[in-house]
Amino acid sequence: MRILLTNDDGIYAKGIEALYLSLVDDHDVLVVAPETEQSAVGHAITWLDPLHVDTVHRNGSFFGYAVNGTPADCVKIAITELMNPPPRLVISGINLGANVGVNVIYSGTVSAATEAAVLGVPSVAVSIDSFKPADFRAVTEFIPRLIKIIDNEGLPEGLSLNVNVPNVPAEEIQGIRITHQGKKKHVERYDRRLDPRGRAYYWLCNSTFTKEPDPSADSSALEARCISITPIQYDLTRYDMLEALRKWRF
Amino acid sequence: MRILLTNDDGIYAKGIEALYLSLVDDHDVLVVAPETEQSAVGHAITWLDPLHVDTVHRNGSFFGYAVNGTPADCVKIAITELMNPPPRLVISGINLGANVGVNVIYSGTVSAATEAAVLGVPSVAVSIDSFKPADFRAVTEFIPRLIKIIDNEGLPEGLSLNVNVPNVPAEEIQGIRITHQGKKKHVERYDRRLDPRGRAYYWLCNSTFTKEPDPSADSSALEARCISITPIQYDLTRYDMLEALRKWRF
Repeated sequence: MRILLTNDDGIYAKGIEALYLSLVDDHDVLVVAPETEQSAVGHAITWLDPLHVDTVHRNGSFFGYAVNGTPADCVKIAITELMNPPPRLVISGINLGANVGVNVIYSGTVSAATEAAVLGVPSVAVSIDSFKPADFRAVTEFIPRLIKIIDNEGLPEGLSLNVNVPNVPAEEIQGIRITHQGKKKHVERYDRRLDPRGRAYYWLCNSTFTKEPDPSADSSALEARCISITPIQYDLTRYDMLEALRKWRF
Repeated sequence: MRILLTNDDGIYAKGIEALYLSLVDDHDVLVVAPETEQSAVGHAITWLDPLHVDTVHRNGSFFGYAVNGTPADCVKIAITELMNPPPRLVISGINLGANVGVNVIYSGTVSAATEAAVLGVPSVAVSIDSFKPADFRAVTEFIPRLIKIIDNEGLPEGLSLNVNVPNVPAEEIQGIRITHQGKKKHVERYDRRLDPRGRAYYWLCNSTFTKEPDPSADSSALEARCISITPIQYDLTRYDMLEALRKWRF
């Protein structure tokens, strides 16, 4: 299959290389990824400034394109400008750190997948539940399988899957769960410090998480050592509120 | 009402000043806004770098705080650090350019509203359907009315409203429609140019839009010269796909 591979940790990250190596024997894979780390950029795109595209050759692994932009930029420029014909699938990852719960809205990894959906290409965002360099084997065994399944089951228009893999050895994975985005989120505060000139500055701290009460949510699957797959989209409408609002007396 | 006012065009933009002046006589309004333009930043937050908060006094209009971050940063730092007690409502705008259809996912203006929802505060994003400095009167008449209505009807938990106002004189507004996010999007391409050293660079161009076929969508309200109000949220789950995916043979 013709695959565009991107990420938000940058083209030199270990995760994208591991994923590339797991796919390149069976698929036609092009890497177009940010030249630097782009974590927590959300669905940012660059339009006030121009984008540069540089070729990168990582010895012994892959040739690809580095873009001075965000993950969504990489997908947009790859599909509309660099790849002809376009890819049949976009894969974004492997991200270090789960993209589950409320934090999905901040995720550059996930935004690459939703940008693909906007452009009509099915996509998979994939993250591992560890902020430190991890054993990627559970991921690199699962994603090639998932691509075969997607190919067998058909590719629904604009389908995006947000895949999160627990940080355990491949043989300890307990199963696969289809989940919804949950409510888990960082407990956040700002650390207020003074610079050498006595001016205050603030640094975002988020060491702990809230508990997820719903067993069918994405992060609950990870806690049960299961792979979580959440189908996602980019329509933010809160449909349950439409009728209530129509009764308001404007 | 205690209100936090922010935007994505920056604290020196005309839109935020017009909105401030329409609210300050009846409400306790604090401005915390980006120090520079932050268009198309999506739901980016800053965590690799620290944030600075500077006081700004625009002569004859308002005192506020400028943050070297995104709209979502402004809301997060205002609610968790700068405002005690927290605001009862967050308003983001007036943005120059409608935030409707697919492009809502790129919007810094809307991301400020969804960040407020994440933090449990109701919110309103407000945009005018013009990319050029416009007559804000239709907006500055409507938003104070909307706040009264929100106060009367009650403030559902985490409610966010994405309000778009047509670019016509206030007296030509044809009504108010409760809408859903539509499918209208930019027709995009990259302009490929050469820099003085012969290297290629790419600039995103998006002069035209696709048509919106659904009369109940957000952009269709604007075309009918109506104010569009879309209730929004940040759960990206595609619930209609959950059952189908559970039947896949993994």
